[in-house]
Amino acid sequence: MLSVMHEHDGPLTRLRRSHEQCVLELLRKHGPLSRAELGARSGLSRTTLYDIVAGLVGSGTVVAGTPHVEVRKRGRPVEKLSLNPAAGEAVGIDFARRAVHVAAVNFAHEVIGSASEAHASDLSWPERVDIAGRLLATLATGSSDDSAGGGRGRKAAVHLDALSAIGVGVVGPTTDPGSENAHAQGIDGLPDLLRKRFGVPVLLDNNTRLAALAEAVWGAAADSSDVLYLRLSHGVGGGLVVGGALHRGRYGLSGEFGHITVDPAGRQCECGKTGCLETRASLDAVLCRYREAGGRADNLDQFLDATSAAERPALEVLERVGSEIGEVLAAVCHAVGPGVIVVGGELAEAGPALLEPVERALRQHLMPMARHHVDVRRATLGEAGSALGGIALVLHESPLLSHYPQPVSEENA
Amino acid sequence: MLSVMHEHDGPLTRLRRSHEQCVLELLRKHGPLSRAELGARSGLSRTTLYDIVAGLVGSGTVVAGTPHVEVRKRGRPVEKLSLNPAAGEAVGIDFARRAVHVAAVNFAHEVIGSASEAHASDLSWPERVDIAGRLLATLATGSSDDSAGGGRGRKAAVHLDALSAIGVGVVGPTTDPGSENAHAQGIDGLPDLLRKRFGVPVLLDNNTRLAALAEAVWGAAADSSDVLYLRLSHGVGGGLVVGGALHRGRYGLSGEFGHITVDPAGRQCECGKTGCLETRASLDAVLCRYREAGGRADNLDQFLDATSAAERPALEVLERVGSEIGEVLAAVCHAVGPGVIVVGGELAEAGPALLEPVERALRQHLMPMARHHVDVRRATLGEAGSALGGIALVLHESPLLSHYPQPVSEENA
Repeated sequence: MLSVMHEHDGPLTRLRRSHEQCVLELLRKHGPLSRAELGARSGLSRTTLYDIVAGLVGSGTVVAGTPHVEVRKRGRPVEKLSLNPAAGEAVGIDFARRAVHVAAVNFAHEVIGSASEAHASDLSWPERVDIAGRLLATLATGSSDDSAGGGRGRKAAVHLDALSAIGVGVVGPTTDPGSENAHAQGIDGLPDLLRKRFGVPVLLDNNTRLAALAEAVWGAAADSSDVLYLRLSHGVGGGLVVGGALHRGRYGLSGEFGHITVDPAGRQCECGKTGCLETRASLDAVLCRYREAGGRADNLDQFLDATSAAERPALEVLERVGSEIGEVLAAVCHAVGPGVIVVGGELAEAGPALLEPVERALRQHLMPMARHHVDVRRATLGEAGSALGGIALVLHESPLLSHYPQPVSEENA
Repeated sequence: MLSVMHEHDGPLTRLRRSHEQCVLELLRKHGPLSRAELGARSGLSRTTLYDIVAGLVGSGTVVAGTPHVEVRKRGRPVEKLSLNPAAGEAVGIDFARRAVHVAAVNFAHEVIGSASEAHASDLSWPERVDIAGRLLATLATGSSDDSAGGGRGRKAAVHLDALSAIGVGVVGPTTDPGSENAHAQGIDGLPDLLRKRFGVPVLLDNNTRLAALAEAVWGAAADSSDVLYLRLSHGVGGGLVVGGALHRGRYGLSGEFGHITVDPAGRQCECGKTGCLETRASLDAVLCRYREAGGRADNLDQFLDATSAAERPALEVLERVGSEIGEVLAAVCHAVGPGVIVVGGELAEAGPALLEPVERALRQHLMPMARHHVDVRRATLGEAGSALGGIALVLHESPLLSHYPQPVSEENA
């Protein structure tokens, strides 16, 4: 049974993990190596190295084989160790409010496919997990395409049996986010359901934060390790990537930009207080403001059409919304100093009509010496973002997945 | 020549560092150990271990000796390795606007002394460095006491010749903060001056951020690893500790809470924009608001006296100031989710008359589910905070100080 190790592990557990990472990094860099070559390059003792390698082979991360080309004069051929291409594959699942999204990457961490299926908002969790299984099976057989369930997978098949873990995004706050012990509020049974279905550890986190991580790994901010991600959708939220890692805050509460107060005398927010950014910049709030300004739109598409047509009330609403967003972002920038701000969610589809006012207000409210130190960009990963973030979670936290059946104590390390 | 290693070092450099830390942690935990015992407990090969130990002995971090009590029947007695008590000592210097503060900790990381000396704000940098040297010498001879230059050192002497590095705080932004390559804006020559004077590496960072780190290590938030520190002084600033480490932001700009906009139509701020929190909550701003409200005070002490006497205009000003501070803190809390907020600087001496309104406004502007997840506390380290933060910087970053004269390449690791 795999178990997740944590920061507060002892020095020898950490050391063992660092030995594993060293072995994996040498194999990644140099290709197949013999145990002797690994020993010489890593500086590990024979006993330690054999132990580490046995664990990595046992977990399927590393495979041992004898190259056909190599001929030795006497004795049996030297066994070479290499990374298991199948083991590098990872999948992510995003359980959004009304849809399930899945995505997969190959050994080289390239996205090889994603798929989505919409569902009613009251669908049961076992049924949502069924959808996820079906979508992943589509990717596994390489049959997913644009005509089937919104998938955009290529022909490459995912080897589901070689997965080390699945990264899962859910709506709302989670306790112990990013770990195997994570629980999502109101859906306590989800990790168990997923573990039973897929037979691997399940790492769970808030899906908006996972989208932030994905944009920092593969998306609009792939060149930056300090990223502020803002999602403008039915709710307004976001996430912070600090030094390349997802920042979670002391109690798993962070990136809640939608609940920063814009106007204390403003409307009641779902969170329980008044005048939050979400009451001004959520999809519903924007449509409402547009109608108050004399515009006519029953849904976002009609509003975006009006924006594209440069209709005045639509642009004015976006100007005011963008200005409020920019002021909130400036406050957060003074606190955390990100290099890139990524704006995602459906409202970001308004493009420059929204992003330009955001950027103007941001710079106006930033102290002059900070004004040219942050880029504002539109998110690039779309609805697959959170599922991709689940993968990033697995890849980033996978060194934390132990390959050893027994806990490592100081005495037997 | 010591050199600083960075996060982007290769896996084998990191591995070597982790070997060193493992050896140091074993010695810390078990006391003196022989090379054979270290080998058995660490899992390192004989060659690797001897190499690591040679480096640690060469740098003075570890000392080798033969215990007198141990008698062996034949052969020479087994040499035991132990941590060098003198090498664990560290000092920090804070070059504030009008004073130099120094502090020192012993091997057990207990504060053994601090000292301060006020000076004119236009004093030259060589003269400030002289003051620092004099104050440190006072600590070194154990002669510092309350009557001499504001020092509060005990009799324990600091061994300045055993220092591995000095952590230094300066006013204003720094480039490459926390590293040996750091430069403070406008005082480029400072690191060189200090290196020449003390002959050891100098780690430089903004002194307000160092105070934040110190409060998270030794001060009001010593039980938390996610801390927001706000300093209310002639300027308003702060720092964030994230997961136990100082957060610096992409361009060294973070913790600038004083430049978050409170009222866009407000007064001009020194930073170049208008309505910043600093224009409302700095010492000058508070005194000005107090006088506008009919109060009479030429300086902070008189204002604090009025506050202690529960004089109405003084309390009303603190109520309004506290309310604005609380709203700004709530915005930052939504973004980063700290477990503890520490309020320091001279204005914090007003105590509950300030902190209670801060806390009320904070909770009012926090989303209900976050309201009970953050404590507000007054800073405890006083004017020695930033110098102590310099020490924390050295202790936290000291694993980054290489003990090897040659850079470690993959081939000779």
